[in-house]
Amino acid sequence: MKKLINDSRDAVRESLAGFAAAHADLLKLHINPTYVVRADAPISGKVGIVSGGGSGHEPMHAGFVGRGMLDAACPGEIFTSPTPDQMEAATVAVHGGAGVLHIVKNYTGDIMNFEMAAELCAAAGIEVQAVVIDDDVAVQNSLYTAGRRGVGTTVLAEKICGAAAARGCDLARLAALGRKVNGNGRSMGVALSPCTVPAAGKPGFTLGEDEIEMGIGIHGEPGRRRMPLAPARDLAAHMAEAILSDLPFHAGDRVIAMVNGMGGTPLLELYLVYRELDEILRGRQIAIARRLVGNYITSLEMAGCSITLLRADDEMLSLWDDPVLTPALRWGI
Amino acid sequence: MKKLINDSRDAVRESLAGFAAAHADLLKLHINPTYVVRADAPISGKVGIVSGGGSGHEPMHAGFVGRGMLDAACPGEIFTSPTPDQMEAATVAVHGGAGVLHIVKNYTGDIMNFEMAAELCAAAGIEVQAVVIDDDVAVQNSLYTAGRRGVGTTVLAEKICGAAAARGCDLARLAALGRKVNGNGRSMGVALSPCTVPAAGKPGFTLGEDEIEMGIGIHGEPGRRRMPLAPARDLAAHMAEAILSDLPFHAGDRVIAMVNGMGGTPLLELYLVYRELDEILRGRQIAIARRLVGNYITSLEMAGCSITLLRADDEMLSLWDDPVLTPALRWGI
Repeated sequence: MKKLINDSRDAVRESLAGFAAAHADLLKLHINPTYVVRADAPISGKVGIVSGGGSGHEPMHAGFVGRGMLDAACPGEIFTSPTPDQMEAATVAVHGGAGVLHIVKNYTGDIMNFEMAAELCAAAGIEVQAVVIDDDVAVQNSLYTAGRRGVGTTVLAEKICGAAAARGCDLARLAALGRKVNGNGRSMGVALSPCTVPAAGKPGFTLGEDEIEMGIGIHGEPGRRRMPLAPARDLAAHMAEAILSDLPFHAGDRVIAMVNGMGGTPLLELYLVYRELDEILRGRQIAIARRLVGNYITSLEMAGCSITLLRADDEMLSLWDDPVLTPALRWGI
Repeated sequence: MKKLINDSRDAVRESLAGFAAAHADLLKLHINPTYVVRADAPISGKVGIVSGGGSGHEPMHAGFVGRGMLDAACPGEIFTSPTPDQMEAATVAVHGGAGVLHIVKNYTGDIMNFEMAAELCAAAGIEVQAVVIDDDVAVQNSLYTAGRRGVGTTVLAEKICGAAAARGCDLARLAALGRKVNGNGRSMGVALSPCTVPAAGKPGFTLGEDEIEMGIGIHGEPGRRRMPLAPARDLAAHMAEAILSDLPFHAGDRVIAMVNGMGGTPLLELYLVYRELDEILRGRQIAIARRLVGNYITSLEMAGCSITLLRADDEMLSLWDDPVLTPALRWGI
């Protein structure tokens, strides 16, 4: 295992310290319990938005804390759920009197701990609602998950809900919006290589020299099947077909498309996959109205990519275009 | 070799097509000769800025084409210089009557071809000046290079010169500014793994299981020495010491700092290295006035990172803060 770390037990803490030092204009790091919070939180009268999950998926979630997106993020240890006390403290820190939305990826530990935190906050008089993201079409149940896993749509939901909250949307409508985004978002990923959790010291799974894992989870959970490496156009078609047939998407739909790198994939390859996706969708008369190409929800140094498509209406597109100022996503400010 | 490509001969062309499709609001792709150019070029009365070099270093350079940075970029094949006809055509396309600045990394092929293009443009009545970036302190001469290699300072020079050109700076002053940036910028990198040029099909070099290459070049050129993997704080100290002693930097200096990923390194590790760099510089009373942490000048899927420090004066910091709107760098717009 070769990593730019000191001791694997300190990697998350030290990385967060560097992250907070680099972005002190936007956010603050709180330790014990650990969360990253907007520098100007709480915003009086605005619904706060908190997300969180295991580390190793950077920039998600802490990289999306700032204006127009998340108010706080709770990072767990690598590939490990954060604890309820982190989520509770973050929720209290961003509560500006209008309640707090939790955006939760569908993993058993995350769900359980966010629920516990919500109960603790409710007992303290803070209204909390949760939106669960379960957009991965690859498998119905998985390691760590009952139902579908939550992946790329999380990024889009955080942007869109963040914009709505900044506009003054109340908690009930914000939760409904988050569920609408989840209901219209679908994702699937492919791994060309495994990744190594520092504390484990060895890859979480192995792949043959010309083998890939189609439908991989962001923690390396098994996908649909192992298959031989194929040209990018075939892999993109495989993922796109699984996504498009699932919702299903139709001719005339407009989508926000994300081609997301898993962490170890060059941008050159991601744009090449974007080209394939663009051609596939043109062929189906589906218009890419907005797009992200890059590393947004990663799996340490895993090679591979995922595709997320969100069937977007005018409201979602308008909210997407609103200004955002975070370490990892910024426009309009 | 596992890559998200179709045929290795088409990888650059197909990736550029995807890049142009994704960023059609900002730029256009011209084919034969191949260059990426601002959608609104030429800007009348503004000095145009053109850079270029081998592909495989994305987002550099095409990812920096847009408002407030480059007017055009010429991508070569992977790790291969672009040709004079690409540079000439890009220069003609961005000439708005005030001349064109070439920002050239110090590699023999790039230098030779940009010089040839400048002569062709001069013959056609376009005034061209060139700034050569040679900021890599690792080695004095190298494969493909007489003198020092051009690396991370290129990104900073493109941002700062781009801002100055947008303000109306004339060609002579812009060239002087670019040379000032180069004169005050220093970089060094470390590789934890090699990378594979698609057409070659195998890694450009090999490293032992616990071995790293200190002072690596962005094409995998040999660095200062092979050494055993060490904690991030030792690697950061090694790079920082080489950089700081070279200029040399002094207590009281303000710097723009970049911790740059080589392509295959998780953001978690880059922020951890940034923390180490921050502590080292604090100990020397050197202030990080601005910073970039992420993948800006990469080497395909190589694992590792580089550090760039630019001793910045008020002019450079002010230009740094100016608005920029490109695929890879954006703020203030």
